Order: sequence, then structure tokens, then C-alpha cells
Amino acid sequence: MTYVAEDIICQAPAGRLEGAAAFRGFMGPFVQIVTSSSLIAAFGDDEKAVVMYDTGTVPVKDAPGAECVTVRDGKITHMRIIFDRVPFDEARRAAATG
Amino acid sequence: MTYVAEDIICQAPAGRLEGAAAFRGFMGPFVQIVTSSSLIAAFGDDEKAVVMYDTGTVPVKDAPGAECVTVRDGKITHMRIIFDRVPFDEARRAAATG
Repeated sequence: MTYVAEDIICQAPAGRLEGAAAFRGFMGPFVQIVTSSSLIAAFGDDEKAVVMYDTGTVPVKDAPGAECVTVRDGKITHMRIIFDRVPFDEARRAAATG
Repeated sequence: MTYVAEDIICQAPAGRLEGAAAFRGFMGPFVQIVTSSSLIAAFGDDEKAVVMYDTGTVPVKDAPGAECVTVRDGKITHMRIIFDRVPFDEARRAAATG
């Protein structure tokens, strides 16, 4: 993930993540469970972009997300990511109760 | 809400809403609880736009959202809206257990 600045700030549904290590700790496990993805929309200019996408994941079949990223010197310095945690929580509970 | 097509399709976290009446049933109550809002990003072209915003609401202090809207003949015919339902569910549970 060399496209991420070392001092990236990521505002995610569960809270604020500071630094590339925290960001990787959040995004890495997600990337592992993605089985498909398709772009809904992508717009931006030289320093800011917004993308919206559908993903299919192992626990949640339909998991759309939206990101607003700020880029400086070719690296993402800020990300605001929005997705619904409810289906992931439900899948976790279902897995826990078997 | 005259900016909405009568046959609008809205894909929301809880599911698919068909038609302006269903859309108003979803968006109307939300608009009632909004206390503040600010735009994070807005991009688009002649037929599609993506907006990301922060809202403050009565039950949830920080409730960001993202929308991708398709516009035809000056009216929104399709909306994809993404937000995290978890804090709203938590607020509802907290209110119920009072």
C-alpha cells in the first residue's frame, strides 16, 4: 500500500485511524474478504476524489462503500470512508451463534 | 421534493425503495432530525453526481452519508445512498431502554 502516506488520517465508521499502520490494520483484513467489486461512480480533481463502489465479500454479499480521498504528492493523506456496518455485525453474530 | 422523479429508485442501506412516496417515507423523517450539515465533497457531470456530507442529527451527533444520484430531465431518477446504520440503531436501543 505504497499509495498511502505514512501520516494518513482515515475517518472510518468505527472512528479515526492515524497513520499507515493503523490504516493497514483496518483495510488489510477487508481486502482479504473481498470476492468482487464494481465501481458505481468516480469523480475528482487534482487533489480530491470521491469513489462509490459495490463489493461482494465473504460474510456480506452486498457491501457498498464510498470514499473521499485527499491526495498530496501522489499519496493519500486523508480518507473518509462510509459504509454500513450493520450487515457485517449481523454476519459476525450469526457466525458466533453458529 | 419536486426534484424527485415519481418513479425514483433508491437503494438505501435497508433495501430498495421504489417510487417517490416510498422515497419520501424514508427521507422525510431523516430531514426532520437533521440539526446541521456540511458538504465534504460534491462532483458530477450532466447526468450523475456524487455527494458526501456530514450531518448532525438529534439522535446521532456525527452521521456522514454519501449519495450517488442520476438525474434525467432535471429530476433524480436513481439514488444510491450509503450511511452507517449502527449509530442510529444504538441510539434507538438507548432510547428504548431509557
